[in-house]
Amino acid sequence: MKVSNKLCVSRLYMYRKALSRFKQMGCIKIFSDNLADGIGVTSSQVRKDFSIFGLSGNKKGGYLVEDLIQKLDEILGKNKPQRVIVIGAGNIGTALMKYKAFVKEGLEIAAAFDTDSAKVDRADEIPVLPLSELADFVRQNDIRVGIIAVPDIVAQEVLNVMISAGIRGALNFAPIRLNVPEDFIINNVNVGVELETVIYMVNALDRRPGNE
Amino acid sequence: MKVSNKLCVSRLYMYRKALSRFKQMGCIKIFSDNLADGIGVTSSQVRKDFSIFGLSGNKKGGYLVEDLIQKLDEILGKNKPQRVIVIGAGNIGTALMKYKAFVKEGLEIAAAFDTDSAKVDRADEIPVLPLSELADFVRQNDIRVGIIAVPDIVAQEVLNVMISAGIRGALNFAPIRLNVPEDFIINNVNVGVELETVIYMVNALDRRPGNE
Repeated sequence: MKVSNKLCVSRLYMYRKALSRFKQMGCIKIFSDNLADGIGVTSSQVRKDFSIFGLSGNKKGGYLVEDLIQKLDEILGKNKPQRVIVIGAGNIGTALMKYKAFVKEGLEIAAAFDTDSAKVDRADEIPVLPLSELADFVRQNDIRVGIIAVPDIVAQEVLNVMISAGIRGALNFAPIRLNVPEDFIINNVNVGVELETVIYMVNALDRRPGNE
Repeated sequence: MKVSNKLCVSRLYMYRKALSRFKQMGCIKIFSDNLADGIGVTSSQVRKDFSIFGLSGNKKGGYLVEDLIQKLDEILGKNKPQRVIVIGAGNIGTALMKYKAFVKEGLEIAAAFDTDSAKVDRADEIPVLPLSELADFVRQNDIRVGIIAVPDIVAQEVLNVMISAGIRGALNFAPIRLNVPEDFIINNVNVGVELETVIYMVNALDRRPGNE
């Protein structure tokens, strides 16, 4: 199963982040326009997203910041810590292990896994373990989500190991399409394609007669 | 200006990658169904994308692999090397500098920039330069696209430096919404939100009665 409602769920996370900022600024109440400006969508989009997830304002219009934060946390499961694993302790995997923004968001990387025994380091703050220990670790720590940060040629193999270990969803950085069962969640981040899209759009803008 | 036609352009890059694989396998001719299977969309989506960009098949149906590759390269500007810069030589920036998939795609990181003088390294394969040299470098090397890999609190400041230096588009990894002029292309990759989306979807799947 591919991430379908992805865009809408992504926006919920962005609303949640914007709400934290409004709270820090001392705001008690906010309006859909505030949230719209905060994340760069229209206010009708905010109201549409909120109605899909059953989030309502108060009678006089607007939303109570604290109330909305609590409701969003409940929907997003942010009231419990989210522990994930990384597969591949190379450049991308290591960068993710040190990524401070994860901690801020209540995301915790419980361990990394690699087939290269030179990368194994059980004493590190985030231990790097042999891939052969993945299944046991996942079972013992009730891990459900993993990040794939391995070269594309081994990505499917690694994903199969994750699936048999009981992992239910993955964020995939390997620039390749992976085959997953219907009930497995896969979300692909292809950094190369994202960069090329920017390059293409810049070039396209130049080619336009009006240079709009 | 935000990336609007983004999804469609992204697919063109994926078609291009799939075509390389088909070529390697010795295929001379392919059909929209082949490409659809290769990147995981419907064949009508392939035909729709191709018609938007004026790509047509031959009279007997199907497309000549080599012909399609050439036409796509022309549209995507892949027939010339694409040189970009990275701003921020921290974890994410360094990982991107070592990211082999970029090289495969004809993407070249010309230099990285950082305000931390301890990170400056002019002798490295990809030099790390002081941020103060960005404007000169961009001008001398005709750089148009940059990758923002700095902490969110300095991202807007860094973006402003890039814009005044003449950069036209950016891939932004800082988890914050940046203000850009109308004619600037910005593409945000929020790794935290992408991961949280997977976690949310896995949890949502569990909560469903039928466990679809």
